[in-house]
Amino acid sequence: MPRPELTDARRPLTYGIDAVNELGESVPTRIAGEHPLTIYVDNRELVTLMTLGGAPEALTIGYLRNQRLVDAIDEIAAVQVDWQVNAVAVRTRGGRGIAPERVDKRTVTTGCGQGTMFGDLMDELERVHLPGDARLDQATLYALLDAVRTHESIYKQAGAVHGCALARGGEILMFVEDVGRHNAVDAIAGQMWLEGLDGADKLFYTTGRLTSEMVIKAAQMGIPFLVSRSGLTQMGYELACQVGITMIGRAQGKHYLLYTGRERFER
Amino acid sequence: MPRPELTDARRPLTYGIDAVNELGESVPTRIAGEHPLTIYVDNRELVTLMTLGGAPEALTIGYLRNQRLVDAIDEIAAVQVDWQVNAVAVRTRGGRGIAPERVDKRTVTTGCGQGTMFGDLMDELERVHLPGDARLDQATLYALLDAVRTHESIYKQAGAVHGCALARGGEILMFVEDVGRHNAVDAIAGQMWLEGLDGADKLFYTTGRLTSEMVIKAAQMGIPFLVSRSGLTQMGYELACQVGITMIGRAQGKHYLLYTGRERFER
Repeated sequence: MPRPELTDARRPLTYGIDAVNELGESVPTRIAGEHPLTIYVDNRELVTLMTLGGAPEALTIGYLRNQRLVDAIDEIAAVQVDWQVNAVAVRTRGGRGIAPERVDKRTVTTGCGQGTMFGDLMDELERVHLPGDARLDQATLYALLDAVRTHESIYKQAGAVHGCALARGGEILMFVEDVGRHNAVDAIAGQMWLEGLDGADKLFYTTGRLTSEMVIKAAQMGIPFLVSRSGLTQMGYELACQVGITMIGRAQGKHYLLYTGRERFER
Repeated sequence: MPRPELTDARRPLTYGIDAVNELGESVPTRIAGEHPLTIYVDNRELVTLMTLGGAPEALTIGYLRNQRLVDAIDEIAAVQVDWQVNAVAVRTRGGRGIAPERVDKRTVTTGCGQGTMFGDLMDELERVHLPGDARLDQATLYALLDAVRTHESIYKQAGAVHGCALARGGEILMFVEDVGRHNAVDAIAGQMWLEGLDGADKLFYTTGRLTSEMVIKAAQMGIPFLVSRSGLTQMGYELACQVGITMIGRAQGKHYLLYTGRERFER
């Protein structure tokens, strides 16, 4: 099955404005781009995402994947972004769009800290099996944290974005930033589909908090290790225990807290 | 018109777990609560929010307000949270629930960095008029930042939450934290409705980034000043210019950057 036809329509990621500081001085300031991107599937409007615009095709595919609106990359024939109209046209191979009942499911659960991915996803989690024999040692974790630290980033220039990385050992395979951390995760999920990558031997790094949603998405990508610079929530913790993911937070420099899945981690 | 019947069903906000640090030491760790809360309006399921649970009634009302599903607090007869079933039952005075076309509108636009509040909201913004004569001086801004800094917070204990404050001058009137910053803003919008507070003489403070959505919500609450510890996005900037809000970012201690609406600010 051929890879979908894709545009490569990334936007400039930062812009310059003038601000005034506490001394009354004019301060040239870089700011992160933010653009509406309305997804149309077989000509039917689905949703408008606000995005940095750094990986709009992968974001679109990952959104369809993570919202469970498409079951396999093979179903997607083309993803074509047109910033003239802030729209992305998705063509499915069937050409019949997305079943209304699936879209309706989504509507009840989409959101941010607002039930995204909730509902049946909880049941779906029961079917997720993460490899028990995967291992991560402290030196590899530190190598990953160092790779993230030294990675070029919009955040360093402009702030106001969240970053996610997919890594094998200490090596970053993908690094995506976006104004919504949901988008950054979705874009990585989309890129993994495009490259046919499996999660079993990977690590997922996020600058964002380890909420229920982040754990659910990592588990659905089949990734046994979830690492964050930030902390976690109670439900993120409970779901990580339930699904058996190895979750590490407050990870920066040579410090971290190992929360769950200790059996996979070697100091 | 009487105030809606409300429960007062706040949850414990933090929980304790044991983590292991880089030295192999067990580290007792406080984590923020996160609970699903499914909103039913006149017995019809609307959405599931993931929330800290600190202000579930105000959150529910503010969600209905900010999603434009209810036009006035008077339409709400009761908001009753039952954590036994992670649900909140909203009773409207009409008892007819929410018009389907409104719910459908929401579905295309709900999200996080995923088009929340987009669509017609952009048109609505044209109708927002923020008071031109409101003024903020540097000393008052510093007083607010100090009040926020010294405010008791979940964030200090457990991290993984965003905080928002409604202030008059340097005085905090409301302070809400939640696992989703959308929720924190919505809870303040709901509390403002409950207390019949107008935004014209208020400041809105958020720990979160100044994205398009944050600017739209502050403008819709009629608040002329938006202050954040974080930075801003391009669309947040463009909307702030368009709606004429005074936006200040990177605000901490005695530092800040004034981005827009300079005419209202006095050093």
